[in-house]
Amino acid sequence: MEFKVLDKGFLRLVEFMGGDKAVVQAARVSHGKGLKGEEKDRNLIFYLMEHEHMTPFEHSVFKFHVKCPIFVARQWFRHRWGSFNEISGRYTKYPDEFYMPSKLRVQSKKDKQMSEFADVKEEKILLEKIKKIQEESFRVYKELLEKGIAREIARIVCPMSTYTQFYWTVNARSLMNFLKLRLDIHAQFEIREYAKCILKVFKKKMPWTYDAFKKLCISNKQNYPELD
Amino acid sequence: MEFKVLDKGFLRLVEFMGGDKAVVQAARVSHGKGLKGEEKDRNLIFYLMEHEHMTPFEHSVFKFHVKCPIFVARQWFRHRWGSFNEISGRYTKYPDEFYMPSKLRVQSKKDKQMSEFADVKEEKILLEKIKKIQEESFRVYKELLEKGIAREIARIVCPMSTYTQFYWTVNARSLMNFLKLRLDIHAQFEIREYAKCILKVFKKKMPWTYDAFKKLCISNKQNYPELD
Amino acid sequence: MEFKVLDKGFLRLVEFMGGDKAVVQAARVSHGKGLKGEEKDRNLIFYLMEHEHMTPFEHSVFKFHVKCPIFVARQWFRHRWGSFNEISGRYTKYPDEFYMPSKLRVQSKKDKQMSEFADVKEEKILLEKIKKIQEESFRVYKELLEKGIAREIARIVCPMSTYTQFYWTVNARSLMNFLKLRLDIHAQFEIREYAKCILKVFKKKMPWTYDAFKKLCISNKQNYPELD
Amino acid sequence: MEFKVLDKGFLRLVEFMGGDKAVVQAARVSHGKGLKGEEKDRNLIFYLMEHEHMTPFEHSVFKFHVKCPIFVARQWFRHRWGSFNEISGRYTKYPDEFYMPSKLRVQSKKDKQMSEFADVKEEKILLEKIKKIQEESFRVYKELLEKGIAREIARIVCPMSTYTQFYWTVNARSLMNFLKLRLDIHAQFEIREYAKCILKVFKKKMPWTYDAFKKLCISNKQNYPELD
Repeated sequence: MEFKVLDKGFLRLVEFMGGDKAVVQAARVSHGKGLKGEEKDRNLIFYLMEHEHMTPFEHSVFKFHVKCPIFVARQWFRHRWGSFNEISGRYTKYPDEFYMPSKLRVQSKKDKQMSEFADVKEEKILLEKIKKIQEESFRVYKELLEKGIAREIARIVCPMSTYTQFYWTVNARSLMNFLKLRLDIHAQFEIREYAKCILKVFKKKMPWTYDAFKKLCISNKQNYPELD
Repeated sequence: MEFKVLDKGFLRLVEFMGGDKAVVQAARVSHGKGLKGEEKDRNLIFYLMEHEHMTPFEHSVFKFHVKCPIFVARQWFRHRWGSFNEISGRYTKYPDEFYMPSKLRVQSKKDKQMSEFADVKEEKILLEKIKKIQEESFRVYKELLEKGIAREIARIVCPMSTYTQFYWTVNARSLMNFLKLRLDIHAQFEIREYAKCILKVFKKKMPWTYDAFKKLCISNKQNYPELD
Repeated sequence: MEFKVLDKGFLRLVEFMGGDKAVVQAARVSHGKGLKGEEKDRNLIFYLMEHEHMTPFEHSVFKFHVKCPIFVARQWFRHRWGSFNEISGRYTKYPDEFYMPSKLRVQSKKDKQMSEFADVKEEKILLEKIKKIQEESFRVYKELLEKGIAREIARIVCPMSTYTQFYWTVNARSLMNFLKLRLDIHAQFEIREYAKCILKVFKKKMPWTYDAFKKLCISNKQNYPELD
Repeated sequence: MEFKVLDKGFLRLVEFMGGDKAVVQAARVSHGKGLKGEEKDRNLIFYLMEHEHMTPFEHSVFKFHVKCPIFVARQWFRHRWGSFNEISGRYTKYPDEFYMPSKLRVQSKKDKQMSEFADVKEEKILLEKIKKIQEESFRVYKELLEKGIAREIARIVCPMSTYTQFYWTVNARSLMNFLKLRLDIHAQFEIREYAKCILKVFKKKMPWTYDAFKKLCISNKQNYPELD
């Protein structure tokens, strides 16, 4: 499963281990095979979620390959329970790819942290300025490299919108925590775009767990319009 | 892959994700497919291990089903970087299975922590006493249950040799740390028996990583006779 | 602060770092000193808790010295986010101290996992049997040691009620998670006795955080009678 | 203890818990107070380090307040075992502070990742270009904010050299791992400047542990010239 995200990014499921039945098996570790038929197994998953017995969900593991802007990666890497391998700007030259929003957002009046889509005066001009300063930054970056300056120091002029790539391995419990925080409409638009794709992968690979998550972990549904 | 361990235990690989090539891919995240041919790929794994760049090994994940005595499980659960689901003595009645060593060991004279196989005077008699007290403990346990006493309180008389079962999901980096600590001849004989089986699984599933681990992570080889 | 717990155990606060004001400082990292007066600071803590912004609570750290039965320690050590150092039964001889419940509990009819205090027929006789089998187990343990058998193998006959000791260092976020799980009336009576003492320490050291936890983290108050 | 680092950054020890004696106490949990006199205590710390018994070091905890460029923070936050609270560019306007190297470095010929100080042709001109593009980026950032564009989107043009601030709480075990990786001459110059200050704090607060770390954890001393 692969998704295009934002203007130049992607999210790709590389590998997956476990699934709904693996949750059931881990929870019923003492009973041999552990499966008791669809209805009982599904109910068990709802029971575990309702009572916050979360360890059985840790035995299902997703591995993603992600391409996203650095300011998004910075939010992502705050999630400590998982494994990351990112391209190194010390080792590799960044290609001149940066994120260009297609529309601008204004500061929210309701929430000191949030933004809102709105009609922005002179939006085209501002977008053009954003584009130009980013191109200019990359021009300087490349010039520094051409003059032999070390990658690790040349890159400091690159904007936070620069695209990076990483592998992320994460278990279903930590993934649900990611979704809870990053699918919320209070999260930044750009990381939400990735969270929406992760949600689709999660739903496809662990449909019962997805249903239980939706029903029992999310109390304020109005903040999660993607949870149908 | 399944192994009998000790007198009544086992270790079984339930699921596995990743492998040597996944290590290479994670380390070369920036280069598309990431594989460059056997020799280069193998060399990269040795390079990573030598320079202690350990994160690429986190993207390979093992899931085991284990049956072992509680005193072994207690050592196992000290390894925080991994996921455990164990049968609950509050929820389930322990079957009367306890570990009976086939031979006894004496306190080591060289090391305050270790034991040594040696000729033990009256070994047969002592083994018989061990067996008898364990049987007797289980008899009391079962009697308490029959009288309606709660499982969670009845079990307190069960010996630490009582067998338990659990699922363990662990990435290759944490697994290598487990092996380093528990395969060492200074580790207790009983958990070493499990570590030896884990080593076989590890070697089979990640042969290059196994070779690099053996060569570069273990400085005092004399403590690891199983590393051929 | 030190508390006697159960018949022979204790819980002792050894050291503490942080506090309510440290939560505020961490949350307001960008604003110099970070404190804005009692009311605003207190409100910030409630805001953080309500919106599940939990990282500021990680900068306050408790260190406890605990003496408890092994079956309690086994539940405790499942909490991976914290640091433990326990006495080693390989290195040290266990003193013959085991937990003796003062009353017995029967299996709950409502919940497959729980127990209930109730009038138990022949309680005195059963308690006597528990005591006797434990004494007998310790007698065998000591005899094995006297015959030179290694501590690590002799101890396998000790009951799960054997007392152990450990140091536990844990931040306030992880501590609240411990309280949520182990102060709940569904937790086992014995570990709840320890959780009650931890609650007192927590309330004393972080009164605002305690209030916010009580109000905003615990939805089903009826399961937490100790939260006044 | 507070240090100026780089051109506009700092590192400040906010709080500390534990110390060498706390290591000893945790390791000797079973023996009451746990201290046996200077020489024996110091030897125990060396013994623990030599045999990689690292958990006793986890009970000492440092809390730092750090101001550093974002590209340094990105390397720092890869250390998952610790707690971070960073200023939020969604919530707060970045002051126009960015890192300006005083000298440039060229790409190393020996190591694909490293840089070297060297005579750089036209260094002054290049440094001027770096300064100018960063100033220009901040000008666009501020203009966007003035036009009402949301902070979270305006900041994407800010360079990776932008200064940020955070609190970091970390135990001594994880701190030593940080030092091992970031004090190494293979680490980037800028994060090494911070690591050098952390080393001074560490040495001051835990002198025995520092000595043991220096002697037993660092095999290739030539990569750590600051370890006197």
